[in-house]
Parts: sequence; structure tokens; C-alpha cells
Amino acid sequence: MKESPLFWPAQLKGRTLLVLDETLIPKKIHYIKVKGTNDAVRVIRQMKTRAFGQFLVVFNTFLLTLKTSSETSQVLMKEIKKTAQALNNSRPTFPFGEVTAVVVNWAQIALDHGQELPAMKRFLEKNIQGYLQGIRHRRLARVAQIASVIEDGDRILTHCNVSGELAMAAQICQQSNKRVHFFATETRPFFQGTKLTCWELQKLGANVTLVADNAVGSLLQDGLVDKVIVGSDRSCANGDIANKIGTYQIAVLAKEFGVPFFALTQPSTRIARGEDIPIEIRDPHELLQFGKRKIVAGGVRGFYPGFDVTPRELIGKSIAIHVQS
Amino acid sequence: MKESPLFWPAQLKGRTLLVLDETLIPKKIHYIKVKGTNDAVRVIRQMKTRAFGQFLVVFNTFLLTLKTSSETSQVLMKEIKKTAQALNNSRPTFPFGEVTAVVVNWAQIALDHGQELPAMKRFLEKNIQGYLQGIRHRRLARVAQIASVIEDGDRILTHCNVSGELAMAAQICQQSNKRVHFFATETRPFFQGTKLTCWELQKLGANVTLVADNAVGSLLQDGLVDKVIVGSDRSCANGDIANKIGTYQIAVLAKEFGVPFFALTQPSTRIARGEDIPIEIRDPHELLQFGKRKIVAGGVRGFYPGFDVTPRELIGKSIAIHVQS
Repeated sequence: MKESPLFWPAQLKGRTLLVLDETLIPKKIHYIKVKGTNDAVRVIRQMKTRAFGQFLVVFNTFLLTLKTSSETSQVLMKEIKKTAQALNNSRPTFPFGEVTAVVVNWAQIALDHGQELPAMKRFLEKNIQGYLQGIRHRRLARVAQIASVIEDGDRILTHCNVSGELAMAAQICQQSNKRVHFFATETRPFFQGTKLTCWELQKLGANVTLVADNAVGSLLQDGLVDKVIVGSDRSCANGDIANKIGTYQIAVLAKEFGVPFFALTQPSTRIARGEDIPIEIRDPHELLQFGKRKIVAGGVRGFYPGFDVTPRELIGKSIAIHVQS
Repeated sequence: MKESPLFWPAQLKGRTLLVLDETLIPKKIHYIKVKGTNDAVRVIRQMKTRAFGQFLVVFNTFLLTLKTSSETSQVLMKEIKKTAQALNNSRPTFPFGEVTAVVVNWAQIALDHGQELPAMKRFLEKNIQGYLQGIRHRRLARVAQIASVIEDGDRILTHCNVSGELAMAAQICQQSNKRVHFFATETRPFFQGTKLTCWELQKLGANVTLVADNAVGSLLQDGLVDKVIVGSDRSCANGDIANKIGTYQIAVLAKEFGVPFFALTQPSTRIARGEDIPIEIRDPHELLQFGKRKIVAGGVRGFYPGFDVTPRELIGKSIAIHVQS
């Protein structure tokens, strides 16, 4: 199976983390050099990477922290907590706190066992690498699971971008001679559907058609959609999810037409229910201008919530992987 | 009351019809010179004008035809039918056929009464001018009606652009000290909400916030919308309407939350029900590129239905004007 560049969009090379700049796709494939925590926070805030990419950046930023720390175990612990704090404050909706807590806990275990700096570094590096390998295998398994719910002849609607998994599932479908057609929504205002999903589906040989976010109701009304498959940025104990703005209305429409709605989730019990998830309100310039070109009259304001909450009852089936320890 | 330039976007000056180029708003106010039927069809097809503007262009194009015709009544009749035919073939969803039939019928009456060319021209010109004045008064009356359904404190969601009426209703609300907040959807792919609705609401002093088409479900879920007010491009005998793509899904969502959905309609009985309305499928370049800049990977296709159908049962109240004779 060919891998989408979005499936694993960040790689550590020596003391540099190479992060795929998703904002330049499909124009070019460029990897940003992240040298430390400040760079990492910047690529996250500017949405140079997003979704699963954020997860990779978090773990790899701790690896960078390990590489640059040279004092004592206690100092390393302080630096790890500082890194965690900075990442936790980068964006609100993705559960950075839950992800960084995994590494902070390991560091605490190392300290509690009286590990010296070299041992502590080896322990943390081994844990992080092993953890990422585990996630990699579980994501590959989920790709197969996604392929298994897709039937011959299906017309699948997706929203935003699920970081390679759907495109790779499409490949499995092709190999087993299932004919599949994808509809990708543009996903305003960031155009992840236009720029990322269409690109990776096309790149891996899938059949994809771009539609405006406005066309979802019409496609369903015309009987053109058999299943909806979307990702999620955060899950709650009760099964509610947060995902890219627009997901919720697609779920309501899918229910109206009895079209199965699948969500790729990372279950967590840290937040009880959807209304408790902090929703990131992003700078509205993405609405007010296109690139550097202003498209709205001067003085008009924009409101740009980055995510919305889809309640459990609208999700037909969650295809879950467990990413927290 | 100040008038929005979108309320009456085409004016005849001598032998030239000046048509507001809505694609340049809010960057500049520019009127395209339409000299005859070919020019008229072009401004319609390229969506330089749309919605009510199309109605004005149709009637004024007949006035241009009158001005250039100098043979006999019979020849004028042929020219009128030719003009009607060209306009009818310009775009499919707006009821050009119904509108042009009004003038063709008048011309037939003139012929049946044996009118000579000068008399026939005077008769048609007087009818067209009178008819447009009638429409103007009914639209102004509808502006007042829209204002009357808006209550103090309302947060109104609108989609696409209703050619001045909402912005002028907003002015009436201000004059009677009703506080109103508007949410305008971007209305991809043509951005009528961003470019036209925000601009005219702002210009007439209303309070407007732009949101992505994706944010409608989230706004409703958060209880931020009290009423939805949209226009319509075509009405059916059973009360179904066609309007800009995206209207249907907003209607479904509004119903889900019990939020009143108002449609500005032009009732007609020529088409029985929504599924019989021909839906224009436009060139997908509007999805695939922004201006001249391509935003999607090469080879990806787009599907761009220009309109969708909202069934009567989702329309809480139609605010109607009768535009056909």
C-alpha cells in the first residue's frame, strides 16, 4: 500500500523535526524545519500541520527537548513540563493536554525511580518511539477497517481531511475491486477538502469530486451519497465528538436521509460531553480575505469557530483507535 | 429610506442598459454597458447580474429591442420572440420563460389589435415601464413586510443575497429602534454573501457578521439565530422553491431547531413542484480555482449545482410578491 504524505506528516531527522507544510499543498510539498518548542507551537498555531500532524509534532517536540537538555533529571523534568505547557496553550480544541500528559507522566515515573539524566533520556525516547510505532500500527489497522465498511459502488462523502486514512482505505478498496466514488467538501474557510483531501485521494488513484460545503444537502436530497466518513479532533466520555466546523450540520443532514455517518475517533473519558469541549475561535481573516486579497467590504466582521460538536446520537458508528495510554 | 444599489441594479440610459457588475463588488461599483440581446445574455450567463437583476435585464432588453426595430409590427414581433428565445436559453433555473412570456403576450395583443409599429412600440414601452414600476412598489412594500416580521433583538441568518430588500428592511428596523444582528453566509462558490450581502448591509448601517457556510449548524446549535430569511429564484404551484445552493440544508437545520424560516417568493403555478424545476449545473471552475488561481490538484473534478430545492413544508412563511401578470 502506498502511503499518503498526510498519513505521517512529521519526521525527526537528527535535531530537526521536518513538518509537512499542509498550507502549500497541492502547490508544493515542502517540509518546515522545526528546531524546538517555539517552532512547534508556531506550525500548530498557523495550521501548517493539523489533525494527526499535531499529535506527531507533540511527541517529536519532546524528543527535541530530550536532545537539547544536558543538565540533570530534575532540570529535564522542568523542561518537559515547560514544553508541555507551551504545546497545551497552542490551540484549544485538540486535546494537547491529554497527549502531553502521557510524556509528563513517563518523566515522573523516571524521576520517581531515581533515574539519572542519560537513563531518563533513554527511557523517554524508547517510550515515545514505541508509542508512535503503536499508533502507526493502529492507524494502519483502522485504514483496513475503513476499507471494510466501504461497499462496492459506494458514494462516500467526506469533510475536511482525515490525514491519509481515507485515501489509503480507497487503495485497499481498489485492490479488492470495490468501485468507490468520493465527494470531498471544500471545507471553508481553510479549504482542507479542496487542497488536501482531493489531492491525496487523486494521488492514490481514487475517484474524487469536489463540492461546495453548500451542496451537501442537495447531494443527499438527490440520493447521491451512500455513506459519510469524517474524522474527529476530540472525543468525550459520552461519545460526542468535536471535528472541523461543518461536521455537525453534515451529521444532521445524513440523519435526515438515513445515510450512515461514520466517525474516526480517538476515545477519551477526560471530557464528559461535547458542550464541555473548548471550541477554538480563530482569527476571521480566513473568511475576510483570500490569501492576501480582501474579499469583503471594509469593516465587516467575521465569526470563525474552528470546530463544532456532533453528539453521539448522530454518529452511526465510531471507528476508534485508542491513542492515550 | 436609502436604497441599496442592489435593489435596482439595472437602468436604461438612452439606447444603453447600465447593469451593475456584481462580480466587482465590494471592490468597485461599475456598470456594464448592455447594447442589445447578446450583451444581455452574456451578463446573465457570467452572473454579472443575478436574482432580481435578471428580471430587470429581461424587461429592459425588450426596451432595447423596441428602440432598434424600425420595420413593421410583424418584424418587431419576430424580434421580440427572438429576444425572448435568447433570454430563455441564458440560464435554466430562473423562470426566464415566464418573464419573457409577459412581453411576448403584450406584443401578441398589439398585433391582434392591428397596431402599426409606432403604436405597438408605445404600447409595449408603456406596459413594460408600468410593469416595472408596479414591481418596484411591490418590492418596496415587501421591504416593509420583512421589517415587520423582524423583532427587537433578532439575530437573522441570511444566505446568498436578496437584492437590497433585507438591507433596506434593516434600515426600517433601525428607524423604529429595533436592534437587529445579521449573520451572512459566505455562499460558496460565488461568495454572494461575502461580497454582496455584507457590503450592502454594512453600507446601509446594519450590523452584520460573516460566517462560513459550514458554521450554520453550529450557530443554530449555540442558539445564536432567531430567524432565517432567504430569497428564491423560482416558486412552484405547491409552494416549493428553488434558491441558491445551500438554502435547502439551512432550511433542514432551521427546522431541526424550530427556528422560523422565511422565504421571499414570487409565486407561480407554471411548475407543479420542486423536483420539476430544472437545476442549473454550472462550470465547476468556481470551485476549482479562486479568481485565476487554481486551488485544487490537477485532474480533480468539481460538481457545482447552482441551486437547490426547498420543499414547502420547510418554509415557515413565504413573503410573496406576484411578478407575473
